[in-house]
Amino acid sequence: MSALKLHPDRFFPADSGTRAIARALFARVENLPILSPHGHTDPKWFATDAPFEDATSLFLWPDHYVTRMLYSQGITLEQLGLQNPAADRRAAWKLFASNYHLFRGTPSRLWLDHVFATVFGFDRKLSADTADDYYDRINTALKLSGFRPRALFERFSIEKIATTEGALDTLADHDAIERDWPGHVVTTYRPDDVIDAGKDVFAANVETFGATTWAGYLKTHQDRRAFFRAHGATATDHGHPSAATANLSPADASALFDRLMRGKRNANDAELFRAQMLTEMAKMSCDDGMTMQIHPGSFRNHNPSLFAKYGPNIGADIPMTTDYVHALKPMLDVVGNRPDLTVILFTLDETNYARELAPMAGYYPCLKLGPAWWFHDSPEGMLRFRRQVTETAGFYNTVGFNDDTRAFLSIPARHDLARRIDAAYLAELVTTHRLEEDEAHELIVDLAYNLPKAAYKL
Amino acid sequence: MSALKLHPDRFFPADSGTRAIARALFARVENLPILSPHGHTDPKWFATDAPFEDATSLFLWPDHYVTRMLYSQGITLEQLGLQNPAADRRAAWKLFASNYHLFRGTPSRLWLDHVFATVFGFDRKLSADTADDYYDRINTALKLSGFRPRALFERFSIEKIATTEGALDTLADHDAIERDWPGHVVTTYRPDDVIDAGKDVFAANVETFGATTWAGYLKTHQDRRAFFRAHGATATDHGHPSAATANLSPADASALFDRLMRGKRNANDAELFRAQMLTEMAKMSCDDGMTMQIHPGSFRNHNPSLFAKYGPNIGADIPMTTDYVHALKPMLDVVGNRPDLTVILFTLDETNYARELAPMAGYYPCLKLGPAWWFHDSPEGMLRFRRQVTETAGFYNTVGFNDDTRAFLSIPARHDLARRIDAAYLAELVTTHRLEEDEAHELIVDLAYNLPKAAYKL
Amino acid sequence: MSALKLHPDRFFPADSGTRAIARALFARVENLPILSPHGHTDPKWFATDAPFEDATSLFLWPDHYVTRMLYSQGITLEQLGLQNPAADRRAAWKLFASNYHLFRGTPSRLWLDHVFATVFGFDRKLSADTADDYYDRINTALKLSGFRPRALFERFSIEKIATTEGALDTLADHDAIERDWPGHVVTTYRPDDVIDAGKDVFAANVETFGATTWAGYLKTHQDRRAFFRAHGATATDHGHPSAATANLSPADASALFDRLMRGKRNANDAELFRAQMLTEMAKMSCDDGMTMQIHPGSFRNHNPSLFAKYGPNIGADIPMTTDYVHALKPMLDVVGNRPDLTVILFTLDETNYARELAPMAGYYPCLKLGPAWWFHDSPEGMLRFRRQVTETAGFYNTVGFNDDTRAFLSIPARHDLARRIDAAYLAELVTTHRLEEDEAHELIVDLAYNLPKAAYKL
Repeated sequence: MSALKLHPDRFFPADSGTRAIARALFARVENLPILSPHGHTDPKWFATDAPFEDATSLFLWPDHYVTRMLYSQGITLEQLGLQNPAADRRAAWKLFASNYHLFRGTPSRLWLDHVFATVFGFDRKLSADTADDYYDRINTALKLSGFRPRALFERFSIEKIATTEGALDTLADHDAIERDWPGHVVTTYRPDDVIDAGKDVFAANVETFGATTWAGYLKTHQDRRAFFRAHGATATDHGHPSAATANLSPADASALFDRLMRGKRNANDAELFRAQMLTEMAKMSCDDGMTMQIHPGSFRNHNPSLFAKYGPNIGADIPMTTDYVHALKPMLDVVGNRPDLTVILFTLDETNYARELAPMAGYYPCLKLGPAWWFHDSPEGMLRFRRQVTETAGFYNTVGFNDDTRAFLSIPARHDLARRIDAAYLAELVTTHRLEEDEAHELIVDLAYNLPKAAYKL
Repeated sequence: MSALKLHPDRFFPADSGTRAIARALFARVENLPILSPHGHTDPKWFATDAPFEDATSLFLWPDHYVTRMLYSQGITLEQLGLQNPAADRRAAWKLFASNYHLFRGTPSRLWLDHVFATVFGFDRKLSADTADDYYDRINTALKLSGFRPRALFERFSIEKIATTEGALDTLADHDAIERDWPGHVVTTYRPDDVIDAGKDVFAANVETFGATTWAGYLKTHQDRRAFFRAHGATATDHGHPSAATANLSPADASALFDRLMRGKRNANDAELFRAQMLTEMAKMSCDDGMTMQIHPGSFRNHNPSLFAKYGPNIGADIPMTTDYVHALKPMLDVVGNRPDLTVILFTLDETNYARELAPMAGYYPCLKLGPAWWFHDSPEGMLRFRRQVTETAGFYNTVGFNDDTRAFLSIPARHDLARRIDAAYLAELVTTHRLEEDEAHELIVDLAYNLPKAAYKL
Repeated sequence: MSALKLHPDRFFPADSGTRAIARALFARVENLPILSPHGHTDPKWFATDAPFEDATSLFLWPDHYVTRMLYSQGITLEQLGLQNPAADRRAAWKLFASNYHLFRGTPSRLWLDHVFATVFGFDRKLSADTADDYYDRINTALKLSGFRPRALFERFSIEKIATTEGALDTLADHDAIERDWPGHVVTTYRPDDVIDAGKDVFAANVETFGATTWAGYLKTHQDRRAFFRAHGATATDHGHPSAATANLSPADASALFDRLMRGKRNANDAELFRAQMLTEMAKMSCDDGMTMQIHPGSFRNHNPSLFAKYGPNIGADIPMTTDYVHALKPMLDVVGNRPDLTVILFTLDETNYARELAPMAGYYPCLKLGPAWWFHDSPEGMLRFRRQVTETAGFYNTVGFNDDTRAFLSIPARHDLARRIDAAYLAELVTTHRLEEDEAHELIVDLAYNLPKAAYKL
């Protein structure tokens, strides 16, 4: 039953001189408001401001970092009560608590401890012994008005947050938010559902989208983008298996669209269509000014039996080798030299940081690099990003931090971690005389606030 | 003629606070017995307990880390007397000693110094000047009863060691050991010789194996696995060029087997057969409980002229790019969700640590990650493994250390190094407040002892 | 308007004990003469000893590290006055100066600051405020005799420098240098222009080269190599898209040559010819003793519109995934075991350091590893090189530092940085007791001086 306390010097370098520099740098940004330009919180939370139900449905069930680790150690999703509202939630929580040691050395542990300590005031670690106390106190707190979504949003000093919606979304939740709450919750245009012809629902989705011809399909995208912008969107997002882009003639693109809509789909055509659509989206961004995000390289739903039972996002997404230098060329040949366009690249394949991504972002005016993503959103992962990217791309071709999370309560934890790691990295540069201390003090604010604000036009 | 002494703080972090934590962590495991669940020592040593011959045949000739480095610098294998019992062994030793500086910065140097200092009591470094003294004193010592294999086994506090034998091995040496010595030396089932149809001897080996049909072939594997288990085996091992797996229908698998046995072999069929056999082995492991190890990704015998002259293992094995996310899917579709199966993955392609291996081991119940392997079994290599694996897979989806060596006398050196590096890594986590010190004290014991014991069912 | 001063401990580790060791190691090599065995300075500078024109044409225009970073942030090459002698050079310089913050964290900044401080004596940082002062003082200085190329060569303590010339070069500048100046400026045979059949000028170049048959073509290479050797060349260099090698029969090679010369060229034939020529060059090196360098893996001229406007080397060269283990095998099958041959491998794909390059260089007598190259010639990049290469290849299969630069004034800065990083790395090994301090003192001199001298036969 050991103590839970967040050390004020956490994540800073061990060397005392360097640590002192990191501490001073972090102090400058510790209390800056949070910009969260890319993430997956549910706008319904802010629209309805309904209280969160309980500890299990808040922390355990929706967090695929947590469920995957428990699953990897032989705990079944049935035991965790997943997708079973009638499950014994306290029992599921106790199972989680009893296995909390599995998260040692992982960022999940760091985020959760931060939430437990700062949002709920716990001072003992989560464990089998404290499971009930945690469960009861969290559930009690969640009933209080101060723990409702809008109150937490304010408590977390969130200046602006972006959610992510599919092209077919009505954005009713965003309407509701706009009507009766001043919190800045904007949407992001993520049209994968009407672009990915590798999915069976593609044709039906495109029909719902209202397009029957290639020209009409492009026009509908333009209209939907305008509709999303009217709900605050400043960015689009594209989660494709690869970073492939294409630059087909209008005739070839139109023929491809027709082939896919007539239902004779194959994997090559689907890949080519996704590729062409990245270029089309980039061209539309040149017109309407939306920042474009590309999140490629995940082998989704690797485990067919769990996918059949539980659907997507239950953890069987595994990073793959990803190419950028050849993949992006068709799109870059069209828009690469546009300084008024911002395309933010992400990767799950860290080998690209120094090899392809930093040299490309350090060259093409339209390209910027998103932060360390998903599995790499961790102390070591973020340091690898900075160490491999900065020397070629500099700081100013990066865009600050994304929390990219659906775990709303962990947002301050994630920004705290990211700001501390940036402070640690900058402090290393200062101690080794690769950067002056006054420059580091400017940069820490740029990384935490100015760069995301500019890249996402927040 | 500089001094040889092993510094008590070797391999610990430079920062004094972190070093103190590492020292305390290491103290907890320094004297734990050694579990060596995967390696290549010769069971004959323990069966016969015959003394080792001399310094050259013990340290130089069988160590491909050593011969490859000398060869790379223009020293011929003839000069080293390789595979020539009549060679001037003292001259070969002196040549080695005179070039000992080549090993600066390599783990070979760390292992050898540890052996020289702790097993033989040398206090001056190996060099041209000390070559004769080393040669004479080592040879004299090897004649003493305390330097025989069984005595060293006890002196090294080896609780259990696994050797590796081919499917056709009679295990006579293990029989002999069991008959008259209580040392725990078990075998491992490594059936590459009857699985790899890429080798010319395949058909002959399968005949010796006693199988003429696919069904009979599978049955013979089951029988041999039982025979190996009766000699203590708890694990199998598979050293394939790639990690490819397959899931053919019984009819297709049978047809493939027949094609290969009728001798019309081609590289694609051989690869497909190896792939299918990994899945078959995994299914048998579900039945008989044997832990399965996969060691893929080495381009063997890269140098044809030296292979023709000296055979395998003379150093021309070079790591290759290795895929896991696609390669393992067919096998995982069959057995991936089995928590009662343990498949331990190794890699020579470190790019997979964070990209594919940690996400897969942090998800699939059957998967665990073996330690940094072969060229990466080194201070920096082991740190890269921990830093890139832990944040996604945690500690509990790893299996502790393997020495994987045929260099018996270096086993304590290798475990000493691994335990120190784990202490160093854990100390870093503690100093940067990513882990509590009491957790690190639990973990260091898990990594050194409990995890290998569990994963290999020792 | 902050101060510019070079800290005497720059680039050394933060830990004070380790830093003290690094300082002592660096002191041993700080004033050693510079060997620059691979680079791209213009021999005309040394032949004519004409003064450099001005700050803009010296520091901004020819430095693709600088222009690419400015371009990536939306500054056009027109604004920088590139390839426009009539441009407003002061305005271009001020634009550069005003954006100097973009280079924070990059090696360009470290090199430039070193030049500004040590060559020109500036004590305030370059910025919008100091732009004019820099411009005027640099331009004034460049008119002085002490700032002419030969004077700077001597001031920089350059013992020997190699330039790089194409196969068709007359080497007139080297003739001129030899005639009236004792500075050691030698050439390097870089025959890409008569080997790369992927370029349209190939056939014309081969005609100029004077070859019409395969046999004649090989003979002309031998003759040109002799001509280059007569101008001091001790090395060849090959900048191919991949590391592919081939070992065709003379008949097949001859047929390939004829196909390419008759103009029916395709990409596969061009790649095969480059591959065959690496093997031919290696065989010629066995005969004439020239050290061979292979610089593969850059996707050249990725940006077609800027290439059309400005030609090569304007930054759109992006590293690609590079294979060595399969690619080099045909050549190694022929010459791999020759200890009298030196083939120096470079890479832009750092994933190969530990996976393929260190194991190959730590095995094949002919192979050595060149230093961290191009984008990786930076503090972090050089540390990644040492950390990933040393444990398998040792130090003695590496060749010391290459500055590889056309930025003549930055040569001392680059060697200063490389020597400091090597000191930092060696100091880490000493502090963690992986190396003795006396060995580190030997090694720092080997890395800075003895290894390049030996590998390049300087």
